[in-house]
Amino acid sequence: MLVGGIEAGGTKFVCSVGTGPEELRADTRFPTTTPDETLSRAISFFKEQEAQEEPLSAIGVASFGPVDPDPDSSTFGFITSTPKTDWANTDFVGALRDHFHVPVGFDTDVNGAALAEGKWGAAAGLHTFIYLTIGTGIGGGAMVNGRLLHGLIHPEMGHIRLHHDWERDPFPGNCPYHGDCLEGMAAGPALEERWGQKGQELEPGHPAWDLEAEYLAQALQSLVCVLSPQRIIMGGGVMNQPELITKVRQKTATYLNDYIQHPAITDHINEYIVLPALGGRAGVLGAIALGLQALE
Amino acid sequence: MLVGGIEAGGTKFVCSVGTGPEELRADTRFPTTTPDETLSRAISFFKEQEAQEEPLSAIGVASFGPVDPDPDSSTFGFITSTPKTDWANTDFVGALRDHFHVPVGFDTDVNGAALAEGKWGAAAGLHTFIYLTIGTGIGGGAMVNGRLLHGLIHPEMGHIRLHHDWERDPFPGNCPYHGDCLEGMAAGPALEERWGQKGQELEPGHPAWDLEAEYLAQALQSLVCVLSPQRIIMGGGVMNQPELITKVRQKTATYLNDYIQHPAITDHINEYIVLPALGGRAGVLGAIALGLQALE
Repeated sequence: MLVGGIEAGGTKFVCSVGTGPEELRADTRFPTTTPDETLSRAISFFKEQEAQEEPLSAIGVASFGPVDPDPDSSTFGFITSTPKTDWANTDFVGALRDHFHVPVGFDTDVNGAALAEGKWGAAAGLHTFIYLTIGTGIGGGAMVNGRLLHGLIHPEMGHIRLHHDWERDPFPGNCPYHGDCLEGMAAGPALEERWGQKGQELEPGHPAWDLEAEYLAQALQSLVCVLSPQRIIMGGGVMNQPELITKVRQKTATYLNDYIQHPAITDHINEYIVLPALGGRAGVLGAIALGLQALE
Repeated sequence: MLVGGIEAGGTKFVCSVGTGPEELRADTRFPTTTPDETLSRAISFFKEQEAQEEPLSAIGVASFGPVDPDPDSSTFGFITSTPKTDWANTDFVGALRDHFHVPVGFDTDVNGAALAEGKWGAAAGLHTFIYLTIGTGIGGGAMVNGRLLHGLIHPEMGHIRLHHDWERDPFPGNCPYHGDCLEGMAAGPALEERWGQKGQELEPGHPAWDLEAEYLAQALQSLVCVLSPQRIIMGGGVMNQPELITKVRQKTATYLNDYIQHPAITDHINEYIVLPALGGRAGVLGAIALGLQALE
């Protein structure tokens, strides 16, 4: 069986065919330009794979957003009100369906990654968990009772409120919508703007990392209290800083202050807040998992 | 059919029998004293109803917490680590099962209220929504994809983080675990401690209500971004202040700043953030709804 996956990022697309981490048969990556050009390249890649192997059985798309993931909506499969104006109101799934008459799964990149981590990675066997990415932006996907969380549209976990101590951190936040929300304070560009250096250039021990961990831990406190996840997976480029996850665990435990009496948090925080198991492949595997889900 | 419902509050119990809002056949209320005494009174009430009518088909309990609502857990049906020490580690469901050999549903008071509002009230027809109560404490229950949210244990939405502007509001917050979390800043006792008057005595137009609305709206911003609910129902004694819901709607819309592009929020905020439809009966109807759910 051949399932196509598209990890549609704001700067690059990754396309692959396969059925899981042990079975990724080919892939390609190219920059995100106009919808026409970019989608054509994805379609050509899948056509080539079909010519070499067999027809696709399904396609999954894990996309930057906001998107419309509701199959009952008239704009299902669209990228909707994205600030990337070229891509606003793009009928992503429609473009694929013109060429492939197979089930298409479509969701946010983070819901895709959550699905893949639940199927093959750090959340295997769990029914309710969060996948959070801290990179150019901050986003979160969630599985609840074994199903991806959509609700009204889909979560936008990067935009929750934090306590901001202006004396300790005079950086005003750079979210164009909310100023000092989580993304405005703790995504990669906020790190760079605050410290005048890219995150990956800030050495271990730099005060940036304590502050970063504090904001992320505040967010985790709220996520734990709202969603009661069985685990939180933290991916994205900023999490590559090796000390950061340890600091986040410590500060989250401090902030929660044993209020949530469950051994997962009080005794096993190292297994409660974890890095992704699928690493950089979580995105495209998320897309393939969405394709497999559409097939079911 | 006769279903028993127990709204188990920290200060009083309400017991009823019936099958829904139009069919509440008897009720009683009494103060919450020791577990033995209080549970005996509930059991006696149900025994009397059985003698007068017919055997109970199921019982539902909507309880103060924290509780263990996981039917697969060895402590299912217990009130667990509550600060009301008499009640810590009380086997609530076990006590009922000694007397009634029927299915027993058991959950938090707010999950019960969410279930009832979804079945008969302000969230009828929706699959993903939040019931928040702002009273002596702040708690939240949620339905996600048509099922109550539990995850690791159950949500504790009162304990999310807020931005606290110490200059505008020097009150440090009174949550014994988190200081200035949502509950510490915006529950009834915080209002009273900050202003030296009970909430119900603070006249309309008092600056207390703008501040209260700001904290609640901050919380709603986060809840919308994490759970993407189709609606938020706000109950509890503090919401009886008639201006408050209007202020909360306005401020939530201001804080979200049109980031979530959905007409439910951008055009219809008055139907997005609402008061409960079941009013003061949401608690005991929640218990009955949990009993009906256990029966299914």
